[in-house]
Amino acid sequence: MYFEGAEKRLSLTLVAASPSLRGLGDDFWRRALLKSDTEILSKLSCEQCDAYLLSESSLFVWHDNLVLITCGNTRLIETVLSLVESLGNVQIASLSYQRKSEILPALQSSRFEDDIARLRGMLSGDAYRIGHLDGHHHQLFLSGEMVQLKAVQTVQMYHIRGELADYLLCDRQTAEGIATRLNLSQLLPGFYFDAHLFSPLGYSLNALRGDDYFTVHITPQEASSYVSLETNLSLGEDLGGIVNELLNRLNPVSWDVSGFEAQEPGYCAEQYSLQASGELTLADGLGLYIKHYKQRDCEQLLPVTL
Amino acid sequence: MYFEGAEKRLSLTLVAASPSLRGLGDDFWRRALLKSDTEILSKLSCEQCDAYLLSESSLFVWHDNLVLITCGNTRLIETVLSLVESLGNVQIASLSYQRKSEILPALQSSRFEDDIARLRGMLSGDAYRIGHLDGHHHQLFLSGEMVQLKAVQTVQMYHIRGELADYLLCDRQTAEGIATRLNLSQLLPGFYFDAHLFSPLGYSLNALRGDDYFTVHITPQEASSYVSLETNLSLGEDLGGIVNELLNRLNPVSWDVSGFEAQEPGYCAEQYSLQASGELTLADGLGLYIKHYKQRDCEQLLPVTL
Repeated sequence: MYFEGAEKRLSLTLVAASPSLRGLGDDFWRRALLKSDTEILSKLSCEQCDAYLLSESSLFVWHDNLVLITCGNTRLIETVLSLVESLGNVQIASLSYQRKSEILPALQSSRFEDDIARLRGMLSGDAYRIGHLDGHHHQLFLSGEMVQLKAVQTVQMYHIRGELADYLLCDRQTAEGIATRLNLSQLLPGFYFDAHLFSPLGYSLNALRGDDYFTVHITPQEASSYVSLETNLSLGEDLGGIVNELLNRLNPVSWDVSGFEAQEPGYCAEQYSLQASGELTLADGLGLYIKHYKQRDCEQLLPVTL
Repeated sequence: MYFEGAEKRLSLTLVAASPSLRGLGDDFWRRALLKSDTEILSKLSCEQCDAYLLSESSLFVWHDNLVLITCGNTRLIETVLSLVESLGNVQIASLSYQRKSEILPALQSSRFEDDIARLRGMLSGDAYRIGHLDGHHHQLFLSGEMVQLKAVQTVQMYHIRGELADYLLCDRQTAEGIATRLNLSQLLPGFYFDAHLFSPLGYSLNALRGDDYFTVHITPQEASSYVSLETNLSLGEDLGGIVNELLNRLNPVSWDVSGFEAQEPGYCAEQYSLQASGELTLADGLGLYIKHYKQRDCEQLLPVTL
């Protein structure tokens, strides 16, 4: 009943006047993803973006930038190095490679330190950790012009509880049933959805509305239940309201929000309190922040028999 | 600036009328400890107990029971298996083998699951985890009659801050200076002390007063600062007051208390709030509890350059 939900993430922006990333075609992405043992399950496209739903999370490709997220024990660094080589580092205006703290790091095939040593062989950049080693933390490597990084917010929820959490563990669940219970069509008007229910457990969803994306990944396994949301929607588009509603429905014991943006989010469902907050100030007024919230009530920890 | 402070722990009680453990002699313990690459640095003895200060933590040997604690990347399971073989499992009335969640588990030479698979080849028993995989948690294997387990409390402090934390990182620190700043001779009247200052950093102390023991291990390294206390002193002996004073002096961001005892400790320095609590009910009214506390204030996380 364990699956590593914590994601590794690449985002990359090309220099102006580069050939379009979308012109590289599905076969190019299929070969690049193969390096990290990741397959394309389906594709949702619109005029501005191709959203690939993967065997381990998601890939979003716009004309001049991409976001690639993988979970489990995938070796994303292999795909990253292969992409930097294929695209050529002079074409890359900015790149960020991130790893969130894994639930069982001992089962990963490399450590972040190993990954960045290899990246530094191809690209100059700076690497950081925000958060304690013995708690949730983010590790990131940044290369190029930070102003080229796209604003994005990620929410990670840990140890979901209640009716929806129970439904996500039951045999009779369906992709439609999950989407309905998340209330996604109401929360994300105008979006197009592509969802996949994994066997035995797990749910991924990509959503597009022009340039906007929203992605949800759920690993409900009891020992390591985890939900991540990522989007480029801004706070002005009521992102706070959307996240608060999902917090109320998924009822995690704790959750983190992080992202690249000048403005830090202030929303928080009232049953949570802010435990820790960190910020990395980058050039051009940009920053990366991380905030950690926990339910106000003392949690009852139940012993697990091994 | 990283050292794995989180401990692995063996406690073991012999059946009545077994030969004395203390009669086995220093060479026996030296050979057993060698299996986990641990050396004896010094020994403090009294009528009731031998307290060995180790290159990685401590060993306490009484007539019919022992407590062995090791930190770092020691393979304590090798010593445990060797002791079970030497002593013979019919001589063992009860045994507990515990591993606290490590700060960097990926650097450990085995996982708890691997260890207990080997232990189960020699002893029947039950294994448990209390606490989430992505947070502080305790893992334990219990064999034999629980009523034979000695009452003990362990306090683990994470991310110490302030004047004493700074002193523990400075060049001019001495073992005496640390003991004075911990106020140990006041807090532990009647105890005898054996302390060691490690190079470049780290401090261990064993203290004995007849049957009573108190041990302190400090790994002040900034990325992973950690202090553990363990004792068989009871709450009636003002253990709460002692722990609260040490919390005030060491000022950790968070701390855990755990132990085998019917009565759970209720003490808590007022700047902390109880975040999570778990209990494992054993036979004979005994229980193992774990409580996790954190400072009430939101913590500022500072980015670390990698």
